[in-house]
Amino acid sequence: MALIVKKFGGSSVATPEKIMAVAQRVLREKGSEDKMVVVVSAMGDTTDNLITLANTLVGQPYTYAREMDMLLSTGEQVTIALLAMTFNKLGHPAISLTGPQAGIKTNSAYTKGKINNVNPVRVLEQLDKGNIVVVAGFQGSNGDGDILTLGRGGSDTSAVALAGALKADVCEIFTDVDGIYSADPRVVQDARRMKEITCDEMLEMARLGAGVMQPRSVEMGKHYSIPIHVRSTFTQDLGTFIREVCTMEEKEFIIKGVAHDTNVAKIGILGVPNRPGIAFKIFSTLAKANIDVDMIVQSIRNTDKDIIDMIFTIAQPDLPQTKKIVEELGKEMQVLGILIDDKVAKVSIVGAGMLGSPGIAANMFGALSDAEVNIEVISTSEISISCIIQADRVKEAVNAIHARFFPKNPE
Amino acid sequence: MALIVKKFGGSSVATPEKIMAVAQRVLREKGSEDKMVVVVSAMGDTTDNLITLANTLVGQPYTYAREMDMLLSTGEQVTIALLAMTFNKLGHPAISLTGPQAGIKTNSAYTKGKINNVNPVRVLEQLDKGNIVVVAGFQGSNGDGDILTLGRGGSDTSAVALAGALKADVCEIFTDVDGIYSADPRVVQDARRMKEITCDEMLEMARLGAGVMQPRSVEMGKHYSIPIHVRSTFTQDLGTFIREVCTMEEKEFIIKGVAHDTNVAKIGILGVPNRPGIAFKIFSTLAKANIDVDMIVQSIRNTDKDIIDMIFTIAQPDLPQTKKIVEELGKEMQVLGILIDDKVAKVSIVGAGMLGSPGIAANMFGALSDAEVNIEVISTSEISISCIIQADRVKEAVNAIHARFFPKNPE
Repeated sequence: MALIVKKFGGSSVATPEKIMAVAQRVLREKGSEDKMVVVVSAMGDTTDNLITLANTLVGQPYTYAREMDMLLSTGEQVTIALLAMTFNKLGHPAISLTGPQAGIKTNSAYTKGKINNVNPVRVLEQLDKGNIVVVAGFQGSNGDGDILTLGRGGSDTSAVALAGALKADVCEIFTDVDGIYSADPRVVQDARRMKEITCDEMLEMARLGAGVMQPRSVEMGKHYSIPIHVRSTFTQDLGTFIREVCTMEEKEFIIKGVAHDTNVAKIGILGVPNRPGIAFKIFSTLAKANIDVDMIVQSIRNTDKDIIDMIFTIAQPDLPQTKKIVEELGKEMQVLGILIDDKVAKVSIVGAGMLGSPGIAANMFGALSDAEVNIEVISTSEISISCIIQADRVKEAVNAIHARFFPKNPE
Repeated sequence: MALIVKKFGGSSVATPEKIMAVAQRVLREKGSEDKMVVVVSAMGDTTDNLITLANTLVGQPYTYAREMDMLLSTGEQVTIALLAMTFNKLGHPAISLTGPQAGIKTNSAYTKGKINNVNPVRVLEQLDKGNIVVVAGFQGSNGDGDILTLGRGGSDTSAVALAGALKADVCEIFTDVDGIYSADPRVVQDARRMKEITCDEMLEMARLGAGVMQPRSVEMGKHYSIPIHVRSTFTQDLGTFIREVCTMEEKEFIIKGVAHDTNVAKIGILGVPNRPGIAFKIFSTLAKANIDVDMIVQSIRNTDKDIIDMIFTIAQPDLPQTKKIVEELGKEMQVLGILIDDKVAKVSIVGAGMLGSPGIAANMFGALSDAEVNIEVISTSEISISCIIQADRVKEAVNAIHARFFPKNPE
């Protein structure tokens, strides 16, 4: 007997036919003793259509955040009712619960709610009665009993949080890709689907630009020690398990993946007076403006010990505001110059094993060198190494690094 | 300062433009100190579309009554969110509440829930904060926290029950007719809009076939002593007030209206042995089959004191089942014959004042006689007199009676 939470996104339940297919799949995969919770999103374009409707009426409907949540939460409610009916029609008892009914408690940040805790009394009751429990993803309620929708990737977070509170054996996330790959398969033809990845590695991959899973749901899985199985809606194959600690030793590869991110801009402040408090001044000013600084490199010039160069990277949407702040600071500090480059990208390797394996960094730099890709900035963490390169070389760079760490199988 | 509950049906909020018009009207009619609660239904065809969607998926979706309620209750939830946004957009603070959030508690009869009580804590809180409170009609929740939809005319009932619990000054029901008429205006050209009618008269009118208001909401208004004002969505005119006791003395007319009902079938059991317990036997058998018997006339034959004729009326949809039961009973009791007539109609006059006004019945029979309409069965209550006539004479009958009691104004 297992307790399994399965989550299907909006494209998996977009039409009555697809809802029927989801129900049939769940019943096929359910052992007679298994307890099943199915978390679903709104059907296909429902959410977009509701937003359009509100926009027609009032323009900028997100101004009325509480009411947007009241509006948008109906989308998932429609899906759960239809899916629960379908299970019953197919002969298996099932019951639908809204996020609030399932005990998902959030803070009061309307339209981007965060789950505070999950008290799944009704879910457990209904599972004990032999029901498949169909829960609305993407929603919960605050202390006032108001309905909130969760932020981006909210349905995944609902599913993982619920799995955690239920002490489920696994949380299966069904999606339109069939797992987590060693690199973006659109960029690297030979990218491999991983059988397993640790939560920390997955979080680092996400932070460094690899999509698929939103960090919040992975953090939730780590917090509750729930394995997350990312797999395809369209095939029966196993996908990738995200676990706290990997169970198999995939010794073959020390690094788990190559990530890249083109949403990067590089700022250089050149010839900054080299005195205490300068870095604090620059980065506290940026922090106050809510600008997230990623890599930071401070370099001392051989020619002049009194000045330094300060180079850092930010996300591209923050560039206009950053530029303004940096130019003001530059004047104030009488620096030699400001350098702005939004035609850069970040390539990274991620792997929990690299700490005990010397030569990984050298191997990465070697691959880039062989591909004649110039490295502009380097930064390292416990489980990753990142390089800033010119954006037009990103494809070659990712492929060169991937080929170095994941040599083609002889067969 | 007044506390007013206004209810707008689905056709009044069918499009974004109509929702805007409702919001503008409510703001125009709101005194600066007034407290306003607005109860709304689902937009136009929303409910029908949801039923079609469920039907496509599972056929006969009402089999899954709990899930139908989960599904259908989203319709009103969309409207309340949009209307609350619109008030805010127009500059007046407003908040939406679902039926459950507004404290509307129901029994557990899914898809035809009945309101047990209303505990409008959140409504009062939000009114005190200066908000217009927009409440989803047609829904509430049971003790388990499940969402239920109410039966037919449920949004009216929501509005009146809420008005009662809030001790509102009035509950305004906006509809596509502009009040309660002395007869169906489609049948009687000279039908007059009443300024006032008592709850009992309105209930009797509804029971006798006059539409407009569902009896449950009128009963609720009587129970809570809340005046109900039935008026038009499309004009500013006052409509008809339904009150426990009329405040103006409309002495002019003793009767309030002429109702008719063609959804009637007449059953005769002829030559029934005249012994104790026979009536009990017939009508308890019908009651067990859940058949609602309306008028009952037992007549003794001059020619044979040992047998009687028993004539009664029922609603036409119950005819096939009634026929079967009556035929079995007839055999068992060895009656002389069974008479079935589904081509009859009932015409009635209603008025609380008729009790103290002799000659009203005679006047009605006279009007029918002058119009050469034959009366087949007569029955009377404290505030009504009904006659069964042939269905093809109903228009003449209603007009003749109406002309007798509501003579044309000289002007």
